[in-house]
Parts: sequence; C-alpha cells; structure tokens
Amino acid sequence: MPVAVIPFKQKNPKTRLSCVLSQSEREEFAKAMMLDVVATVKDAMCRPVILGTEPFESDDLVQVAMPEKGLSDALNEYLSCALDSVLIIMADIPLADEASVRRVIATQSDLSIVPGRGGGTNVIFIRDPAKFRVDYYGGSFAKHMKIAADAGLSVEVIDSFRLHTDIDEKEDLPELLIHGKGKSRAYLEEKGFTLISDKGRTVVERKQ
Amino acid sequence: MPVAVIPFKQKNPKTRLSCVLSQSEREEFAKAMMLDVVATVKDAMCRPVILGTEPFESDDLVQVAMPEKGLSDALNEYLSCALDSVLIIMADIPLADEASVRRVIATQSDLSIVPGRGGGTNVIFIRDPAKFRVDYYGGSFAKHMKIAADAGLSVEVIDSFRLHTDIDEKEDLPELLIHGKGKSRAYLEEKGFTLISDKGRTVVERKQ
Repeated sequence: MPVAVIPFKQKNPKTRLSCVLSQSEREEFAKAMMLDVVATVKDAMCRPVILGTEPFESDDLVQVAMPEKGLSDALNEYLSCALDSVLIIMADIPLADEASVRRVIATQSDLSIVPGRGGGTNVIFIRDPAKFRVDYYGGSFAKHMKIAADAGLSVEVIDSFRLHTDIDEKEDLPELLIHGKGKSRAYLEEKGFTLISDKGRTVVERKQ
Repeated sequence: MPVAVIPFKQKNPKTRLSCVLSQSEREEFAKAMMLDVVATVKDAMCRPVILGTEPFESDDLVQVAMPEKGLSDALNEYLSCALDSVLIIMADIPLADEASVRRVIATQSDLSIVPGRGGGTNVIFIRDPAKFRVDYYGGSFAKHMKIAADAGLSVEVIDSFRLHTDIDEKEDLPELLIHGKGKSRAYLEEKGFTLISDKGRTVVERKQ
C-alpha cells in the first residue's frame, strides 16, 4: 500500500490566479483541490500524507511539516527513509481520479511519471524510494527522466490528461468546470464561475 | 479496420499562432502536424482519409473535398454513408501516438471520445457511424456526450494527455517540444524554437 505524499502550500498559494480570486479565496480553493486529491488517492488505496508549509486543522489527515529548505530537499529526505513505495502527487490536480492513479501505481517499471502542463512533474510513483531523488521546478519532467536513466531505473510515462492538468492559471479553470467532480469544482461554482463557449476554446467568467 | 477521417485546413490555418509564425509557416506547420497524425493512425492500423478544404500534392493520401457547408455537415454526410467504423481525429494533435490511438479504437463502448483542451473534441471513435452525428465548435465535448446519451449509445472517455493536447496557441508549443517526436516538432526546431525553463511552466522562445 503506497504512501501518497502531497506537498501543500497553505498560505498565499496559486498567485497566478490572483486575477480572479482573492488571497483568502485562493487559500480555500487550494485546500479544496488538495482535499479532492486526498479523496482520490484514498479511493486508489494509497495512504495520504500532507507535506505542508503550515499545519491546518484536520481530524484525520497525517501532516508532516515541510522544512525551510524547500520542496525537493524535503521530499528527498522523506524518500531516503521511506519503507514503502511512494507516490508523490501534486495538490493542484483535482481532475485526478481513481482510475488514473491506479494506472500510475500499477506500473511494472521501477518508476512511473506523469508530466504536468509546461514540462513539470505532476505525479511520480517510486517503487524503491531509496534509489531515486527528485528535483522539482524548471522543467522537472526532463530532469526526472534523466535522474532515472542515470540511476538505471526503468520508467513508464503515464498518458493521462486528468493527471497532466495542473490548475495554475485562469486558462486552466475551464478544465475543472468541464471535467471536475469534487469540492474544488463546487467551490468555483459557488464563487460564480461559469463556462462561456464560442467558436474557440471554452473560457470562464466570474459572476458575482 | 477503421477509417480515420482527418479534417484539414490547408490555407491560413492556426491563426492564433500568428504571433510567432507567418502565414506560409503556419501552413507548413499545420501540414507537418497533419502528417504526424497520419503516420500515427497508420501505425494504429487505421486507414487515413483527409477531409480537406483544398487539395494538396500527395502521392499516397486519400483526399476528400470538404464542401462549403462546413465541418460538422461534411462529417455527418460522411458518417451517414460510412460502411466501417470511423475514427475522427483532429490534424492538430501531433502528440498522438500509436498507443493512445489504440486505446481509443479498443473501446468496448459504442463510442469513445477524447476531450480537447478547452472543451473541444479531439478524437471520436464511432463503431456504427449511422447512429451518431457530430456537432463541432463551441464546447463540442459536452454536446457530443449529450448526443450520444440521447441516442442511447454507451460512451467511454479516454484519458490521454497526448490526444487532449491540441496545438492552437503559443502556450501549447512547449508540449510539442517536450513530448513530440515527429515532423512538426522538427519543424519548430528548424524554425528556431527552443524551450526556456525558470520556476514556472516552461515556455518557448524563437531565435532566428
């Protein structure tokens, strides 16, 4: 049963959404997305652990404090002492569903990975955590492929738009309203976001 | 062996890429993407048919002229007389690979569908073409799901970022340089496009 580590920034997250959401709304929205990811990894029979910048109130979630040194170092420290296989899954991919997460953890390779939009890494599954280290930010998908190759680890790239679609910008919000089902989609609707279609891509508008 | 119908606009395509490519370059680039899709559907054992606005030189491709009335009417006319199952696949999804197309045509449902970015429809596979009609543009994914439901057809939504990623805007080009393998990726490289990574998403820059 893999541990699913979910990095989570509680304070002032998702700044690229500032054009449509206030800081407190971004904090609520980021938390709703994280809770959607938590529900999904539980459905896929993983045990969620929140690696958070600040603790938050929760009756049932395992929380680990993220040290000052930053995400990659914190995760690498975690990997070096992990006893089980580890799934690292970002908190901002609320389209993740049980089927897509199960495809990731069902890999026959040493590692499976899902690229995010714009060259990032949204999900990695590491069968033997001690053999791998992560390096996030700045084209991390290519970096992770190279780290795996250098370590002689086999890699499967999982082709999933649900796991590929990270929600960072206003242009990403239509995907959540079209394909989302959980708390984060409900949050956007509650805040007055609706879809507008003309001939090109569907966009969102916020009505107050 | 399904027929793969590939709608293709030869003249002045991809106008949202005008900021980085001239008209003749957009025509070359659109053709390179289409040829990548053609190669992929052949790998997946489908027979490509180009439904084109204008004929172009080709020794081996089956071309059908798109009538004035527009894409949906043209496709519906085609569907009403098709004898085999039909795959409709857009010409601007050059990340499509054999595995993803095979997942689409392997469906056990009456229909399989892949949403595009922004609520469009990038791929539909129709087992019995006479039972379905298409309605492109303006949130066509939701429209196609409704048409299928109204017709009592079962639908499988295929979760693939390779088939989900249509290349329409400058912000889509990094995906092609990161994950592409065919002629269209080579074309961008030849024209001086390179990836730039900082902390956020990777973007492209064009060097002349």
